[in-house]
Amino acid sequence: MNKLKTLYVVKVGGQVIDNTEALQEFLEDFVAIPHPKLLIHGGGKLASDLSARLGISQAMWQGRRITDKETLKVATMVYAGLVNKTVVAQLQSKGCNAIGLSGADANCLKTQKREVKDIDYGFVGDCFPDGVNLDFLDMLLANKLVPVLSAITHDGKGQLLNTNADTIAATVSKELAKRYQVNLIYTFEKKGVLLDVNDERTVVPRLSKSTYKQLLKEGIISKGMIPKLDNAFDAIEGGVKRVVISEFNDLKKSLKENDYTGTTLVA
Amino acid sequence: MNKLKTLYVVKVGGQVIDNTEALQEFLEDFVAIPHPKLLIHGGGKLASDLSARLGISQAMWQGRRITDKETLKVATMVYAGLVNKTVVAQLQSKGCNAIGLSGADANCLKTQKREVKDIDYGFVGDCFPDGVNLDFLDMLLANKLVPVLSAITHDGKGQLLNTNADTIAATVSKELAKRYQVNLIYTFEKKGVLLDVNDERTVVPRLSKSTYKQLLKEGIISKGMIPKLDNAFDAIEGGVKRVVISEFNDLKKSLKENDYTGTTLVA
Repeated sequence: MNKLKTLYVVKVGGQVIDNTEALQEFLEDFVAIPHPKLLIHGGGKLASDLSARLGISQAMWQGRRITDKETLKVATMVYAGLVNKTVVAQLQSKGCNAIGLSGADANCLKTQKREVKDIDYGFVGDCFPDGVNLDFLDMLLANKLVPVLSAITHDGKGQLLNTNADTIAATVSKELAKRYQVNLIYTFEKKGVLLDVNDERTVVPRLSKSTYKQLLKEGIISKGMIPKLDNAFDAIEGGVKRVVISEFNDLKKSLKENDYTGTTLVA
Repeated sequence: MNKLKTLYVVKVGGQVIDNTEALQEFLEDFVAIPHPKLLIHGGGKLASDLSARLGISQAMWQGRRITDKETLKVATMVYAGLVNKTVVAQLQSKGCNAIGLSGADANCLKTQKREVKDIDYGFVGDCFPDGVNLDFLDMLLANKLVPVLSAITHDGKGQLLNTNADTIAATVSKELAKRYQVNLIYTFEKKGVLLDVNDERTVVPRLSKSTYKQLLKEGIISKGMIPKLDNAFDAIEGGVKRVVISEFNDLKKSLKENDYTGTTLVA
């Protein structure tokens, strides 16, 4: 029998952050999780909106943002500032003792600046396992605090780095899996992994690595889903007990193992 | 003999935040303090600059900002986001285990929205003693963490509030004085309390409450200093061992009790 405590890691995607009402409902469901828990959030469209208002053009390459100095400032303001503190204040008002963190805070998530190969992504951080300050996160959890991580990390040498929130979720979950039975739930605007991106009825309820590879080969998985699924399988292979990809509205259902909401990944 | 541990609370004012080189030097002096410590920072001109770039006009009254909804967003982005995380990442790179916090984080500083009397200050928070989460701050300090507090607080009901950083420094110091011998150092761009605001040679080395009242009566204290001095005497009267007002360049000297740098307040 596994005696590790259950822990939930929930990632919330862009669109819910931009919608005040949806955010409230999502946070209420999150607060209701009767286990130690951790929230990881991106910044939604707010960062692009602010960049546009400031006249900073957002360079993109293959759907990924290129983070120059000005874009990093905007991301830091929006993710680690406005979004993180708004979410924390809302959680506090709902009786959840949240604490907002960037990776620099208590050195809780160190990353390395992405190497320049064909492309210079700028101030983007890549996660590595030793970068997670497991003792610190565990100390917070032991004190019944609920960490709320933004997608801003640091390199330990004074540089802040913009980091993919899905990858943070997988990396942190794998480390926490050394001390907890981790359930990782990726919530976003779709019902789950879809066979047809335009038809919400085509959710794949359970997805194995071999089926994923097959679907990839057949070109059935939409491009935007590939990094998320790579992160999700990385988490499963790294010892995370359960990974679910589901709609943010369905968070409550996603907590129940036998309610096949969204897509549950299996090894 | 007083057996309480020594603790330093340092407030850093606006101008040093805006100057990268001065900030580096200041932070190095801060890191060198060989005692548990806590940093409180404002946001300098960065918030006004960002507001101007976004076309948000900054309403002022008697030198105080009036914080409307848009200004609060800017303050949250700049103070709790950009400035706080930049300072934390710099401190981490210097071997100081800093953790950045707004008042919402772990409910560490609850304030109340300022009552509307003659003026509606908007989303401005007023400190009250019970608003400080002493146990949480003490837990961080016991774990050798260095809290870095921004001037964004919350009301516990989901509302973030812009709060005077000098007042935060006094309020937090008074609470911490229950468990530590607190030295509170207000650093800013002047040499200390000046008898002539245009002459740095007129620093008052020691200032008692009665002399302060006398100087006030005579109109000798400059208007901008009055709220700072009221906060400083409030701290002294609330059990803080020593309060110094000095230039940020002089932080190192301000640590030594017998080096009369800046202005030392006496009861």
